[in-house]
Amino acid sequence: MALISPSRRLRRTPFSEGVEAADVKAYTVYNHMLLPTVFESVEADYHHLKKHVQVWDVSCERQVELRGPDAGRLMQMLTPRDLRGMQPGQCYYVPIVDETGGMLNDPVAVKLAEDRWWISIADSDLLYWVKGIANGWRLDVLVDEPDVSPLAIQGPKAETLMERVFGSSIRDIRFFRFGVFQFQGRDLVIARSGYSKQGGFEIYVEDGEIGMPLWIKLFEAGVDLEVRAGCPNLIERIEGGLLSFGNDMTDDNTPHECGLGRFCDTHSAIGCIGRDALLRVAKEGPVQQIRPLSISGDPVPACTDYWPLYASGKRVGRVSSAAWSPDFRMNVAIGMVRMTHWDAGSKLEVETPDGMRTATVRDKFWI
Amino acid sequence: MALISPSRRLRRTPFSEGVEAADVKAYTVYNHMLLPTVFESVEADYHHLKKHVQVWDVSCERQVELRGPDAGRLMQMLTPRDLRGMQPGQCYYVPIVDETGGMLNDPVAVKLAEDRWWISIADSDLLYWVKGIANGWRLDVLVDEPDVSPLAIQGPKAETLMERVFGSSIRDIRFFRFGVFQFQGRDLVIARSGYSKQGGFEIYVEDGEIGMPLWIKLFEAGVDLEVRAGCPNLIERIEGGLLSFGNDMTDDNTPHECGLGRFCDTHSAIGCIGRDALLRVAKEGPVQQIRPLSISGDPVPACTDYWPLYASGKRVGRVSSAAWSPDFRMNVAIGMVRMTHWDAGSKLEVETPDGMRTATVRDKFWI
Repeated sequence: MALISPSRRLRRTPFSEGVEAADVKAYTVYNHMLLPTVFESVEADYHHLKKHVQVWDVSCERQVELRGPDAGRLMQMLTPRDLRGMQPGQCYYVPIVDETGGMLNDPVAVKLAEDRWWISIADSDLLYWVKGIANGWRLDVLVDEPDVSPLAIQGPKAETLMERVFGSSIRDIRFFRFGVFQFQGRDLVIARSGYSKQGGFEIYVEDGEIGMPLWIKLFEAGVDLEVRAGCPNLIERIEGGLLSFGNDMTDDNTPHECGLGRFCDTHSAIGCIGRDALLRVAKEGPVQQIRPLSISGDPVPACTDYWPLYASGKRVGRVSSAAWSPDFRMNVAIGMVRMTHWDAGSKLEVETPDGMRTATVRDKFWI
Repeated sequence: MALISPSRRLRRTPFSEGVEAADVKAYTVYNHMLLPTVFESVEADYHHLKKHVQVWDVSCERQVELRGPDAGRLMQMLTPRDLRGMQPGQCYYVPIVDETGGMLNDPVAVKLAEDRWWISIADSDLLYWVKGIANGWRLDVLVDEPDVSPLAIQGPKAETLMERVFGSSIRDIRFFRFGVFQFQGRDLVIARSGYSKQGGFEIYVEDGEIGMPLWIKLFEAGVDLEVRAGCPNLIERIEGGLLSFGNDMTDDNTPHECGLGRFCDTHSAIGCIGRDALLRVAKEGPVQQIRPLSISGDPVPACTDYWPLYASGKRVGRVSSAAWSPDFRMNVAIGMVRMTHWDAGSKLEVETPDGMRTATVRDKFWI
C-alpha cells in the first residue's frame, strides 16, 4: 500500500490534531478532505464500533447551504423525493439527480428553516451543480459552503456518551431529526443519524474553533465507555447496505438502480430537474439493481476496481464493494446485477484479482 | 506519513499497472483519481525531470466535453478570457469563474472544432458547474466526461522520445497547439503542453485500452534517454510558478488575485457569467496577489495548511505551497500577499509548523 502525500489541497479538519494523536493508520480523500479509514485495523475498529462508542471525524461531509426565498424551490429541483411534507427539524436522505436521472450525490438534506437548508454531501462537488442551477434558473437564493464540520458519535454506547456532554434531552431526538444544543456558549445542530447501523448522532460543528475542545470533552466523558477515535467502517457499512457514492454508484446510475426507489416520489416531486427522465423507470422499474452478495472462499483482497459478474460466461453485473466479515464468517459484497439474475439465491461467478469465485445474490443485507 | 486506503472510489487509471511496476511511493487524489507524487524521492525525481525525460500518468486531468451548436457560447460563459480569436487546434489556459468572479477551476481548454471542446480540468468537479449552467440556461449542448486519460511526456529529452514513437512531424507542434497522430490505428490528440517548465507534450489517450501498450512503447523507445515514470514535481512547479488549484487558490480568489489577469479580457469577454463582478477588479486591480517568496533557513516541512504571513505583527497574507529547492539552495514558496507588502524585496515573517522564519517577496519565479 502506498503513502498519501500531504498538501494544503487535501484539507485538514478542525479535528485533525485529535485524529493524529489517536494514531490514524490510513486515510482516504473525500470532498478534497482527509477522511480516516483505519485506526487499529479495519477488523479491530469494526469489533469496537459494534460494542462501544466511537468519535468520527467526518468533516468531509461538507455542507451546501441554500438560503433565501427560493431555497425550498431549488431543493426540490435537485431531488425526486417529495419534500412538501418536510418540517424544519427534519433530515431526509435525498438522491440528487441531473436532467437524465443520473445520480450526482446521495446526501442528507437538513431543513433548518423554510428558507434555509443544509445539504450534507457525499463525495462530489455538489456545490458546483447547485450553484450552476441557481445561476441558470436565476433563483433568488444564496448557495455556498459554510464552515461546518460534522463529528459523528457512533456505536451502542453513543447515547450514554452524548447525554453526559449535552444532557438528557439528547435522548429525545428521534431518528433523522435534529435539535439545537449548546457547547461552550455556541449553538450546535445535533441529529440522530450517521453512516453506521450501530446508532448514534452527528454534531454539525460550526466554526472550527470549538472542534478540539469538543473532541477532548467527549473523550474525557467516555473513558469508562471505552470511547475511541473511529471512522466509517468498510465491513460494517457493507453488512448494513450503506451505499458509497463513487464506489457503488455513479452518475451512470438512476436512484432506482441503486435501490433508492423508496426515496423517490417521481410523480409528485414537481419541479425536480430529472423527473421526466425518471418517470418511465419509476413505472417500469430498472433493468439492473444494487444487491447484497456473498462471495465464497477466503477473505477477498481490496476491491479497487469493478469486479465483473458472470452467469454462463455472460456478463450480468459487477461488484463494487467487498470485504471479509468476521461476524458472518463470509465475504460480504455490494454489486449491481441485471434483472435476469438478481433474484435471491442466484449463483454467479465473480472475477476477483485472485481468480474466479462464486457469488450468491442474497435477499437482504446482513444487518 | 499515513497510508492511502484503496477503493473503487479513488479511481485507477489505464496506466496504473505501469505506475505500480515503476514502484510508485506515494499518491495524492485528484478528481477522484490516483495521481502519483513520488517515485524515487521528490528530490531525485526533480533532478531527473530537469535532465532527462519522464512519462507522467496524469489521467486525473479529466476532460469535460462540450458538443453541439451552443458549445462555443457555453465555453465563453465560463471564462473571462476572450475566446473569439481561438482556432481549432489551439489550447488556451482559461480561468473559470462563477458569478462572483471566484475561481472554480483553472483548466486548459482544447478547441477540437467549432462545436466541440474539451476542458482539461484541475482538481474540482467542473463537470457539475458546466452541466448546471447548460441546464439552467437551456443551451443546446451535450456536456459529459469522456473516457480520455492524458499522459504527459516531460523533460528536455521529451521531443526526442516523442519523435521516435510518433515521427518527426511531432516537432512541428507549436506551444499550446495540438495535432492528431496515430498509434496502433487510433487517432490521438497530442498537444505541446504540460505541468512543468521542462518542455514536453500531453497525449490525450481516448479509450483506455491502448494505455498500457503506449506506456510500454514509450519506455522501450527511451531506454538510452533514461526515460522514467514521473509525476508533477512539487519543487519544480513552485520554481516555475505553476499554480495548483485548491492549494494556491480557491473559489475565494479572483483570477486577478492569482496573477492571471493576463488571461482575462474582462471588457471583451461578452457573455462570461462572472464578467460584471470582475469589471471593477480588472480596472482597479486586486488588493492581494500571488507572489513568489523565499523562506529562510533549513528545508521547510510539508505545507499542509496555510502558513500565515505577518509584517510588524499584522497579518498580511499566507503561504500555500513551499519546498526546499536543491538547485537554488533555498526554500521556494508561493503565497498570497496584501498590496501593502507585495513589492519585491519586502521582508515578512511566516509562521511555519516549526517556528517563525523570514519570508522575502521576489520579483519573479525561479524558472
